[in-house]
Amino acid sequence: MDASIQFGKGGRLRHLLTLQDLPADLIVEILDVAKTFLSVGARKTKKLPVLRGRSVFNLFFENSTRTLTTFEIAAKRLSADVINLNVASSSQSKGESLLDTVSNLVAMQADMFVVRHSVGGAPIEIARHVPDGIHVINAGDGQNAHPTQGLLDVFTIRHFKGGFSGLKVAIIGDIKHSRVARSEIHALTALGVDEIRISGPQSLMPTDATTLGVKIYPDVDAALAGVDVIMMLRLQKERMEEALVPGAEEYFEKYGLNSERLKLASRDAIVMHPGPLNRGVEIESAVADGPQSVILKQVTFGIAVRMAVMSILAS
Amino acid sequence: MDASIQFGKGGRLRHLLTLQDLPADLIVEILDVAKTFLSVGARKTKKLPVLRGRSVFNLFFENSTRTLTTFEIAAKRLSADVINLNVASSSQSKGESLLDTVSNLVAMQADMFVVRHSVGGAPIEIARHVPDGIHVINAGDGQNAHPTQGLLDVFTIRHFKGGFSGLKVAIIGDIKHSRVARSEIHALTALGVDEIRISGPQSLMPTDATTLGVKIYPDVDAALAGVDVIMMLRLQKERMEEALVPGAEEYFEKYGLNSERLKLASRDAIVMHPGPLNRGVEIESAVADGPQSVILKQVTFGIAVRMAVMSILAS
Amino acid sequence: MDASIQFGKGGRLRHLLTLQDLPADLIVEILDVAKTFLSVGARKTKKLPVLRGRSVFNLFFENSTRTLTTFEIAAKRLSADVINLNVASSSQSKGESLLDTVSNLVAMQADMFVVRHSVGGAPIEIARHVPDGIHVINAGDGQNAHPTQGLLDVFTIRHFKGGFSGLKVAIIGDIKHSRVARSEIHALTALGVDEIRISGPQSLMPTDATTLGVKIYPDVDAALAGVDVIMMLRLQKERMEEALVPGAEEYFEKYGLNSERLKLASRDAIVMHPGPLNRGVEIESAVADGPQSVILKQVTFGIAVRMAVMSILAS
Repeated sequence: MDASIQFGKGGRLRHLLTLQDLPADLIVEILDVAKTFLSVGARKTKKLPVLRGRSVFNLFFENSTRTLTTFEIAAKRLSADVINLNVASSSQSKGESLLDTVSNLVAMQADMFVVRHSVGGAPIEIARHVPDGIHVINAGDGQNAHPTQGLLDVFTIRHFKGGFSGLKVAIIGDIKHSRVARSEIHALTALGVDEIRISGPQSLMPTDATTLGVKIYPDVDAALAGVDVIMMLRLQKERMEEALVPGAEEYFEKYGLNSERLKLASRDAIVMHPGPLNRGVEIESAVADGPQSVILKQVTFGIAVRMAVMSILAS
Repeated sequence: MDASIQFGKGGRLRHLLTLQDLPADLIVEILDVAKTFLSVGARKTKKLPVLRGRSVFNLFFENSTRTLTTFEIAAKRLSADVINLNVASSSQSKGESLLDTVSNLVAMQADMFVVRHSVGGAPIEIARHVPDGIHVINAGDGQNAHPTQGLLDVFTIRHFKGGFSGLKVAIIGDIKHSRVARSEIHALTALGVDEIRISGPQSLMPTDATTLGVKIYPDVDAALAGVDVIMMLRLQKERMEEALVPGAEEYFEKYGLNSERLKLASRDAIVMHPGPLNRGVEIESAVADGPQSVILKQVTFGIAVRMAVMSILAS
Repeated sequence: MDASIQFGKGGRLRHLLTLQDLPADLIVEILDVAKTFLSVGARKTKKLPVLRGRSVFNLFFENSTRTLTTFEIAAKRLSADVINLNVASSSQSKGESLLDTVSNLVAMQADMFVVRHSVGGAPIEIARHVPDGIHVINAGDGQNAHPTQGLLDVFTIRHFKGGFSGLKVAIIGDIKHSRVARSEIHALTALGVDEIRISGPQSLMPTDATTLGVKIYPDVDAALAGVDVIMMLRLQKERMEEALVPGAEEYFEKYGLNSERLKLASRDAIVMHPGPLNRGVEIESAVADGPQSVILKQVTFGIAVRMAVMSILAS
């Protein structure tokens, strides 16, 4: 994809589709704006007039209550009118094409689309299709990208580690099929962390690790040794059904983050996970709920980051 | 149905259930109010306080995401509290009657019901049932009426043609089973167009064409000759399943609006369609997306028309 | 359950989980606040800024459009941001635990949870789990409690009877499995009615009637004799499937409230029902729609009571 499609007139960010090739200073700007929104969530009156009278459409072609909820809250706290469209069960089933559905919503004077789709590239197609003044946020497309997740992850790291230089980060699990991992890697690379290590079953390692700028560690324990940040990925059940990985128990044994393994990392390493957790599969409960876990902080930061993205695009 | 049920004390419009027997000056008033709302949709802050603190219930007994969305947006832009009730999956399944459901919502101090129902007449029954001060808008009932669609269609014609007198209009497709066609014909007749022609497979022509004041053209090409407005109807798949029409391909061949046929109409004829489109069935893509198509404009105007109806009823 | 969990610092009501052991003066306070909200519902602009900028999550693990709608309206009339989560179809199906789901919503800075669950005690578990400053309202849990229903019922009685002392109340139907009956009995007992009689098929009578402070009347007619308030319960179809009761017709014959039976009660007795009605099963239509029925008033009062509970918890 041509990264320039994300930018509008005057080089301003118009859509957020991927973190790939996004300049570091723009990422930092988003994180800085998000930081100002953090305090809004902690207030009793969690409301700002930033998007008042704007129509935000959550276009979810793939079911995800959790992600939908985070975008819905973010938009409502910015005073937008929010319309949730579970598109799977609507016009699409009447045989209408993706772009015809979008054209109709544009004609209803939508201001912003938050798009989740099982097909990689669908939000890009939509972004190409909509006229000036309308913004598209990718809320996860196939195995391609999940940019707001990547942003909230680096927000979390900056919050707890103060910055990125000199950091060693390990991402463990199904890198190959994970849009989350891809967006994390793009953000971490842009922000200049020292080292990105990936580990997991060989069948779930990407073929383009070198291009991505990450190093595959066949041995999880070696990957964790001395790292500052551990990012665990959710193991999708499909991977087991496809026999790409052994059963849940064996996976936990070989790749799961338990208290013993955690000790291999730096003493003040933080543990992250995009949720929802498979307790006892990719992560032990004692670790998920332990003092080094920042998993729930990621959720809180995620609202602030989504508010920041929406307000930057709309401004 | 007795048209008087639509009017409350002092002869003011209280419900919008059908366009049949609605006086022309009332239709024109709605279109005029809608015109003032058009500019609201084009603003960044698409918000007016007209229905602030009022409770609008979208009561959809028949699934229609698209129509629901247009009413939801219209109500939210007027600052109403909107409650969407997918009634198919709720109390009704607990064996509660339609009117018991409505009585309960009235007891919750509803102000307005937008009703979609697969049974013709259901919104009329509800309008008869609710107490003074509560308004019912028919969002499509069986094969009976879809008045806001009829209104947005004449709004569109007035917008592009300046008025109605002297106009020749062709409606093509399944007139017999179409609430859209019925409401269009009522509005066009009230507003005094010169001629309404209908065409399509004989099995889909109404038996009461004379009463309706329209003329059946067995030959589509003859129907299109020299008309100013072409209204294409969506072909419901059911019609094919019931063998009332041939297959999609043959239907397109015989009745579909393609570029060749379009040339038969007046040079500045506009092409309309209520959506969603069956591309390649009732309409060719080149026509649907061509310079004479005003299909997406209909959608935009539909929001303004629904805002107008809601604000007139509630005022 | 330890009733103290409902109270926060300084002994203020923090959660509403059950009416059991709730002090009478607190119940009266809720009813008094609800009375002030009644007029809001009757205004055109049904809107107060009490919960402006607060995030209320409707967490319905059990489908109930009607109850969900009453809470949604109540919260919106208090200007809250409302998020409806049909949890049955979301993360839970991805194998996430109840408390993990709640933890995530807490991390999104939820202010209040309205919880419906088929398992008794689930809202208590959630209340134990959430941090300070977050409120839980039980919207019905298993066969345990439905406190806002109990409150709106006593609100209704006070409204029509002026008070509670000296009143005789009959509750008819499936007491054993009914959270509604349980909450009604707790409220009526706290408020000091003279007598609570229960009646219905023996298989649906509770085993702890004495503890509850109610008296079982095997004969419905005897139970109704001279009472001031009749509370009919909805007969769940499951009871018939489990063969705990005879068929619908026989049930109506033996236990249904018809016009004849109604005459056994005090001449100005009121008839109540939590809805939705099984007309012709537990209640005759002539009675449900008759002059002594206050069933729809219960619905109206229910909104005011829920607004009162929300505003008291949040204040």
